[in-house]
Amino acid sequence: MEHIPDRIDTGVQRREESAAERWARFAPITTGDEYVASLRNRGVTVYLFGELVAEPVDHPIIRPSINALKRTYDLAVEDPDLATAHSLLIDAPVNRFLHIVGSPHDLVMKNRMQRRMGQLTGTCFQRCAGLDTISVLHSITYDIDQAHGTSYHQRYLDFMKEAQRNNIILGAGMTDPKGDRSKRPSEQADPDLFLHVSRRTEKGIYVRGAKAHMTGGLNSHWIAVMPTMNMGEKDRDYAVVGLVPGDAEGITYIYGRQSCDTRAMEAGDIDKGNAQYGGQEVLVVFDDVFIPHAHVLMDGEYGFAQEMVARFTAYHRASYVCKTGLGDVMVGAAAAIADYNGADAASHVKDKLVEMTHLNETIFSSAIASSHEARQLPSGIFMNDAMLANVCKHNVTRFPYEISRLAQDLAGGLMVTLPSEQDFDHDVAGPILKKYFQGRANVPIEFRQRMLRLVENMTLGRNAVGYLTESLHGAGSPQAQRIQILRGMEVERKKGYARDLAGIRQQEHGAA
Amino acid sequence: MEHIPDRIDTGVQRREESAAERWARFAPITTGDEYVASLRNRGVTVYLFGELVAEPVDHPIIRPSINALKRTYDLAVEDPDLATAHSLLIDAPVNRFLHIVGSPHDLVMKNRMQRRMGQLTGTCFQRCAGLDTISVLHSITYDIDQAHGTSYHQRYLDFMKEAQRNNIILGAGMTDPKGDRSKRPSEQADPDLFLHVSRRTEKGIYVRGAKAHMTGGLNSHWIAVMPTMNMGEKDRDYAVVGLVPGDAEGITYIYGRQSCDTRAMEAGDIDKGNAQYGGQEVLVVFDDVFIPHAHVLMDGEYGFAQEMVARFTAYHRASYVCKTGLGDVMVGAAAAIADYNGADAASHVKDKLVEMTHLNETIFSSAIASSHEARQLPSGIFMNDAMLANVCKHNVTRFPYEISRLAQDLAGGLMVTLPSEQDFDHDVAGPILKKYFQGRANVPIEFRQRMLRLVENMTLGRNAVGYLTESLHGAGSPQAQRIQILRGMEVERKKGYARDLAGIRQQEHGAA
Amino acid sequence: MEHIPDRIDTGVQRREESAAERWARFAPITTGDEYVASLRNRGVTVYLFGELVAEPVDHPIIRPSINALKRTYDLAVEDPDLATAHSLLIDAPVNRFLHIVGSPHDLVMKNRMQRRMGQLTGTCFQRCAGLDTISVLHSITYDIDQAHGTSYHQRYLDFMKEAQRNNIILGAGMTDPKGDRSKRPSEQADPDLFLHVSRRTEKGIYVRGAKAHMTGGLNSHWIAVMPTMNMGEKDRDYAVVGLVPGDAEGITYIYGRQSCDTRAMEAGDIDKGNAQYGGQEVLVVFDDVFIPHAHVLMDGEYGFAQEMVARFTAYHRASYVCKTGLGDVMVGAAAAIADYNGADAASHVKDKLVEMTHLNETIFSSAIASSHEARQLPSGIFMNDAMLANVCKHNVTRFPYEISRLAQDLAGGLMVTLPSEQDFDHDVAGPILKKYFQGRANVPIEFRQRMLRLVENMTLGRNAVGYLTESLHGAGSPQAQRIQILRGMEVERKKGYARDLAGIRQQEHGAA
Amino acid sequence: MEHIPDRIDTGVQRREESAAERWARFAPITTGDEYVASLRNRGVTVYLFGELVAEPVDHPIIRPSINALKRTYDLAVEDPDLATAHSLLIDAPVNRFLHIVGSPHDLVMKNRMQRRMGQLTGTCFQRCAGLDTISVLHSITYDIDQAHGTSYHQRYLDFMKEAQRNNIILGAGMTDPKGDRSKRPSEQADPDLFLHVSRRTEKGIYVRGAKAHMTGGLNSHWIAVMPTMNMGEKDRDYAVVGLVPGDAEGITYIYGRQSCDTRAMEAGDIDKGNAQYGGQEVLVVFDDVFIPHAHVLMDGEYGFAQEMVARFTAYHRASYVCKTGLGDVMVGAAAAIADYNGADAASHVKDKLVEMTHLNETIFSSAIASSHEARQLPSGIFMNDAMLANVCKHNVTRFPYEISRLAQDLAGGLMVTLPSEQDFDHDVAGPILKKYFQGRANVPIEFRQRMLRLVENMTLGRNAVGYLTESLHGAGSPQAQRIQILRGMEVERKKGYARDLAGIRQQEHGAA
Repeated sequence: MEHIPDRIDTGVQRREESAAERWARFAPITTGDEYVASLRNRGVTVYLFGELVAEPVDHPIIRPSINALKRTYDLAVEDPDLATAHSLLIDAPVNRFLHIVGSPHDLVMKNRMQRRMGQLTGTCFQRCAGLDTISVLHSITYDIDQAHGTSYHQRYLDFMKEAQRNNIILGAGMTDPKGDRSKRPSEQADPDLFLHVSRRTEKGIYVRGAKAHMTGGLNSHWIAVMPTMNMGEKDRDYAVVGLVPGDAEGITYIYGRQSCDTRAMEAGDIDKGNAQYGGQEVLVVFDDVFIPHAHVLMDGEYGFAQEMVARFTAYHRASYVCKTGLGDVMVGAAAAIADYNGADAASHVKDKLVEMTHLNETIFSSAIASSHEARQLPSGIFMNDAMLANVCKHNVTRFPYEISRLAQDLAGGLMVTLPSEQDFDHDVAGPILKKYFQGRANVPIEFRQRMLRLVENMTLGRNAVGYLTESLHGAGSPQAQRIQILRGMEVERKKGYARDLAGIRQQEHGAA
Repeated sequence: MEHIPDRIDTGVQRREESAAERWARFAPITTGDEYVASLRNRGVTVYLFGELVAEPVDHPIIRPSINALKRTYDLAVEDPDLATAHSLLIDAPVNRFLHIVGSPHDLVMKNRMQRRMGQLTGTCFQRCAGLDTISVLHSITYDIDQAHGTSYHQRYLDFMKEAQRNNIILGAGMTDPKGDRSKRPSEQADPDLFLHVSRRTEKGIYVRGAKAHMTGGLNSHWIAVMPTMNMGEKDRDYAVVGLVPGDAEGITYIYGRQSCDTRAMEAGDIDKGNAQYGGQEVLVVFDDVFIPHAHVLMDGEYGFAQEMVARFTAYHRASYVCKTGLGDVMVGAAAAIADYNGADAASHVKDKLVEMTHLNETIFSSAIASSHEARQLPSGIFMNDAMLANVCKHNVTRFPYEISRLAQDLAGGLMVTLPSEQDFDHDVAGPILKKYFQGRANVPIEFRQRMLRLVENMTLGRNAVGYLTESLHGAGSPQAQRIQILRGMEVERKKGYARDLAGIRQQEHGAA
Repeated sequence: MEHIPDRIDTGVQRREESAAERWARFAPITTGDEYVASLRNRGVTVYLFGELVAEPVDHPIIRPSINALKRTYDLAVEDPDLATAHSLLIDAPVNRFLHIVGSPHDLVMKNRMQRRMGQLTGTCFQRCAGLDTISVLHSITYDIDQAHGTSYHQRYLDFMKEAQRNNIILGAGMTDPKGDRSKRPSEQADPDLFLHVSRRTEKGIYVRGAKAHMTGGLNSHWIAVMPTMNMGEKDRDYAVVGLVPGDAEGITYIYGRQSCDTRAMEAGDIDKGNAQYGGQEVLVVFDDVFIPHAHVLMDGEYGFAQEMVARFTAYHRASYVCKTGLGDVMVGAAAAIADYNGADAASHVKDKLVEMTHLNETIFSSAIASSHEARQLPSGIFMNDAMLANVCKHNVTRFPYEISRLAQDLAGGLMVTLPSEQDFDHDVAGPILKKYFQGRANVPIEFRQRMLRLVENMTLGRNAVGYLTESLHGAGSPQAQRIQILRGMEVERKKGYARDLAGIRQQEHGAA
Repeated sequence: MEHIPDRIDTGVQRREESAAERWARFAPITTGDEYVASLRNRGVTVYLFGELVAEPVDHPIIRPSINALKRTYDLAVEDPDLATAHSLLIDAPVNRFLHIVGSPHDLVMKNRMQRRMGQLTGTCFQRCAGLDTISVLHSITYDIDQAHGTSYHQRYLDFMKEAQRNNIILGAGMTDPKGDRSKRPSEQADPDLFLHVSRRTEKGIYVRGAKAHMTGGLNSHWIAVMPTMNMGEKDRDYAVVGLVPGDAEGITYIYGRQSCDTRAMEAGDIDKGNAQYGGQEVLVVFDDVFIPHAHVLMDGEYGFAQEMVARFTAYHRASYVCKTGLGDVMVGAAAAIADYNGADAASHVKDKLVEMTHLNETIFSSAIASSHEARQLPSGIFMNDAMLANVCKHNVTRFPYEISRLAQDLAGGLMVTLPSEQDFDHDVAGPILKKYFQGRANVPIEFRQRMLRLVENMTLGRNAVGYLTESLHGAGSPQAQRIQILRGMEVERKKGYARDLAGIRQQEHGAA
């Protein structure tokens, strides 16, 4: 590997745990409470507001993001038809977030579960990128093995058995920092701007680099690191897929800020808007982290990087159907405020609720259509239709913004002028506020406060990150979808339809 | 029936043919040519431009609309997987336009065939309302029988066997003229403004009234007359469903005009834009037309009128997926003109083609999602999801207009300033035009003419009726979809999600 | 001029009339009738449908376009405050379409007159490009004279005195056919694809080439030929501005088709929609046409071509305010049909009328703002703000399409299924149609017919060319405005605002 | 006043200061620093986060809102042409925010100054409602005097002389809490839900009630209380206009929360996004506040309440042109980030900047058009065009949301995942972040941080309140504009245009 010799073997030495040693730290999880317990005392290094976090589980800003993932466990208990599936791999029911999609129906059920989770949490519940990674790795390890005679697929299956038995959360570490975007991984001034193999030993490999804005990274038990884009021969060391426990030696987390994040640290629960649930984005730094061979699923097969990313985006862009669950909350919140204001019978109010619903269901239809129209891959699993997944995601980059605008319209200006919960509780100020903010008779003022704060939370506050900006950029920014649509639009075939109807017989002219 | 005594028994006497006599006039049709032949010499009364049409098949304005239906026969021959299905009723393959939908897959295949037909004809091929009527009548006759002990369903099955064996075209006569829209059928000053039973004899019933803007009415072998809206007890005589051959005594057709319709009568085929295919809308007048009992599928069961209409709109609003076939033609035509103009590499051109495709596929996804998400009705057949069908149709009332605008953008202004084909053929004017309208080298000027005329045809001309205005109003105007979305949006459930997240515990307050 | 020697002097010899001889054929026009009379017996060569037109004034397809221009004369008589202005040049009132804009107020009054003309004719009245040319030539001849010591400006003033005294119509011949768009004028395979000087004699010059889709070209008394884009030194012969009477030797007109154009040749006036008024686009071919020196306003000063075009687009893009007059007609027509259908009280109907009005007034505001914000040019006249003019035109490429869609929504499907006027007049069919198309009591069916046909005319038919496609492409296609907006958006200044607020002090870093 | 006897004379006794006594507390202000000083030590009662604020000027959350107003003083010093005008009242230059609009030009200059202030502060600078109130009161006091023989206009002029001489800030107290919206002021269960006269003494009146979401209320020297809607005879005591110093006895302020408000209390200035400027919304409670007769400008003349509100909305809806200044910042910030990311040459990036600019300038054109088209009122001042002002504001309820979405698109996902400023400063985490978030060479990472935080601030954070939600609801929610557009759209006139063109001669039928 003479092309990047100085990057290899940084000489760092970590404890070279085997796969078995790593799994030995886990025990099967069933309930949400067990999940929360499983995150305690992991000894991970986490920075937030310039300080090391002693125990992330107890940090008021981090906890809501954990609660969102916790809900994925509880839902499986409450509604197993929706949120579990029978795994052929271990011949037992598993959480659907760990299920290998064996049919279009599995993909459709995935979408239904995602919408439901959106309704229940009103935020990003952070488990979809990992779920979609599971599907991608099933098929891509199979294809690599076919081409290169490797045995990644069996490693994958072995890992997945443990993952399903222990009901762990797998996070997807995909987005490298990228540095200068006009340069390839191997051309960057700092080789670490894309994650790469930094050392190879008898027992495994070491990886070095970082994964940026990793959704729910800190709340995951395991992280799959994967290439973020197509790779060339010189990028061979960057074409690496590995599975790493979140508490592995050498990993550092730096927590991303969100709008209104510190409200979680205030007293009271009204002004938080959605006190229980939130999303999470972290920078995960890999400072020469060891991965045993059993957990390496690609190492140098750069020719498969692009296809891996393409499959990931196909799966993951349809996963944005979760936003229709948040859209349902927006419709409900806007309708409730209209009730509280006594405006629910106005025709323009009903018309705006219809428009919000229409947009929301349009998103839903693209996602679910993509899943129904899935096709089988060589490894035997199914992948949803890529064109429709891109169409779904592209609508997600637009419609939640309009739904959000309409919700703010129905909420009224009070949403951004309402005094704090503390003022409502104050001996002097409180009674004044209650006197003057009384709306429709019989509707407690607290209801108005809470519902207004919820809309604020989802359109300006912490969960606006998940409902709006993440809808724009997650799984690829708008232009990324347009490029895929351009590639898949089959314009030559369509020109043929037009020529036939226009009566153009090209062959007679040998032209155009 | 004392409430409308004077409407009963107009005393008109027609030849009271039996069902068998009526079917005796038909023979099985296989090819498109046979279909065209089957329409000849029917002796129907048709007015167009103030004149009786001697033979509609030979009229240059009418013929393109027949050609579009002809294509449905030829497609079944060319691509039987797509355009035929196995009928359990006669245990034989049948044209999919006559197939009773037995599964979600049948509905999905219907959508695929509709898109394909749109690609092939670039217009409304007029056979979908009849197709959707077949599904509606299967289930509604079953339900009426269950409620009233009637035997409509068996009559329906008997009719369908003949229909399938003979491969006939069934048209849907649904929209009554309606007169004063603030009044119910039985309250109209002129009782005929809604079609109704005007006489009852031993052998059958007579119907009187008219069906307005009936798509492909003149090109249909049989017409199903059906109520157009909910009915009350006093509208009992208006709650009638019957099957009538298009050449029955007492039927008169008056042909609807379309933009640029008379170009079909000009010499040459370039300026027509799409010389071969067109749509058709007619007023069909029923002047005491006889229907034997065997062909009566509802007579007075007014309580089922609303549900019948609801099912029809659910089926039919998803059938507007056909417009994505026309959208494919628009994308192809716009791309081809950009090629001819040498502008195909411009980034804004590609971006507009992507936008057109994105909108088109959004429509497609709503339709196909609606079909995949179908549910079974008591009669055993499947009905597609009503919410998603409304969402599909509602997008159809918007996106084709934007696609059309973008196509005109890429076409350039020449589309509306190009001289006539005759000028291009003129000894003096022709060479001048060819000199000055030469674009990219090697592209014959005729190609530009033809492609520009095709875009004109679909955005301003004859097939703009089908691509734009019919997309707006067919199967219900935009407001009709909004009403259905309002009804189906389950806002109370969604308010519950919002309350849960906002931390509102209603029971503690007994409020709001 | 060795670079294009073979193009010079085609050897063709025309009668070399002096300016005075040419003006001698004119007499002052006051009324619309006098205008129509002035067009008779000019002996122009016009092709339409492959035939020479004997007398354009009497051709039923051409006449409505003449009527629209006729209205500009009558309006000046009826409402002189609006449609005339005092000319300092001849110290007398002149038609505002011939007025040299001496102030922002003149530009505002121009916009008001344009909107009014749109309301009165419902079509393109074809006199704006000439009007804006008058302003452009005033300033550009002045600037050329300053730079080159020429005397074009005095020639211009002399011409304008005659033009104002005789109240003639000046047409703008700007758009060359352009051929291969990747090549400059002097590089085209056929030198005639851009109009150019083909011969120079003692008395004047000859020009050769063509001007494509020239609005109202045949209805103009004089034509100003001008460059259509920036020119380089090698394009010197193409940098020519000249004034030519429409009946000059060597000019040929070939008439452009429009949607539904032949309805003008049908009997009756209902189905025409707007029987009286229409637009006109013609190809005007200059086969070595002579121009005396007195009527040459640029000859070789290629450096001014780009600025001339820039000024023309600034003036002309705001002239698209005329479409708000057509928008007023659309609002009125949609409201009237809603009345006729008895739907005028529905909230969604009112809401759609509001949306149509909102969009229409948004266009209006950009135009009128552009005029109010005019700045003085060196020649003393005023030019409206270029950025706002581009914004106006860019909205015109979008909003009329949406207004049109909403009008079709309110019109209902009958707009495209209504039988012909001839059927309504037929002995048998007529009474049937009148029976079944009766709507709201007391509203004659003919009213519905007429109003529906008007909406058809403006959204699909002949005047949809003016209301829609011309709105898209006239004065530059959408991308042309985006390029101008990009150029004028002063992004560096705006980055400075952002840096100041973000607290970025660039100088401290010497960066970015 | 027997209709609400129990509301009169609450018996509360305040110090009954004369107008002169009140003005005696003021001294002329010139610079921004003097303005800030003038706010100190006023002894006002302010609640924020459940606590009394000792000195609002020093509170880190409040101070940025004061800075925004401070900028209005400094701008007058820096750019007197823009931000001052010559007052005829005191024959001296005055801050334009206190100028009585004497011409359309004054209104245009107002708009220019508003845009400039938006560029300089990136937030709501809170002085426009007061400015527009000045215009409204000039004309309405004049009109009341004409009708009722009162002398309010002279009182107004006297007040304005002092206001101009002292260069004070006048805030507009308009929006009452309104309680049950289906009831009129005099019908509310709690009479205080609309501000009203609670006592009358020899020296003046007492008012009682509250004004909700008052922009910049706490930062104003004087507050004008005014009716918020039309009033009937029974609401006579609610038809009151008075001028009150912000530190009058009986006034309490309760501060409204904003998204991310507490970031202002964090260390560092990066994460604040716009550390210097912010908006302010407060609830202002009037607990029997005394107003001397000299400062009462309406008392019981209920018939003028509606017209007063109508004029206020006409003026104020065009004042939303300020958002184009914020739009300029958005364009600049998005362009700067694209630079920092090395994406500035991408065609889709440029296209999005063009779209943002196009939308922004569309807003600008409606505002400025409205001002240019102003008409004179009886009192001699000018009022901008109401239709165009409504059109302006209605576009403001839409376009900033789309501009914001596009800015987030160009900003990239990092905007919502970036760790805190404290992490960047941390010994261990800081270097890691700087290593991995390095983008384009030579661009300091701090630049990216600051620019991303600015976009966050304006689209999700504190100034998103001003740029988005206030754009939606300020000066009336979207539906309020639609109602005004409906009222002003002159649909009957437009129907006439349509009838004329359609050839409908109504008089011949006496119909429709």
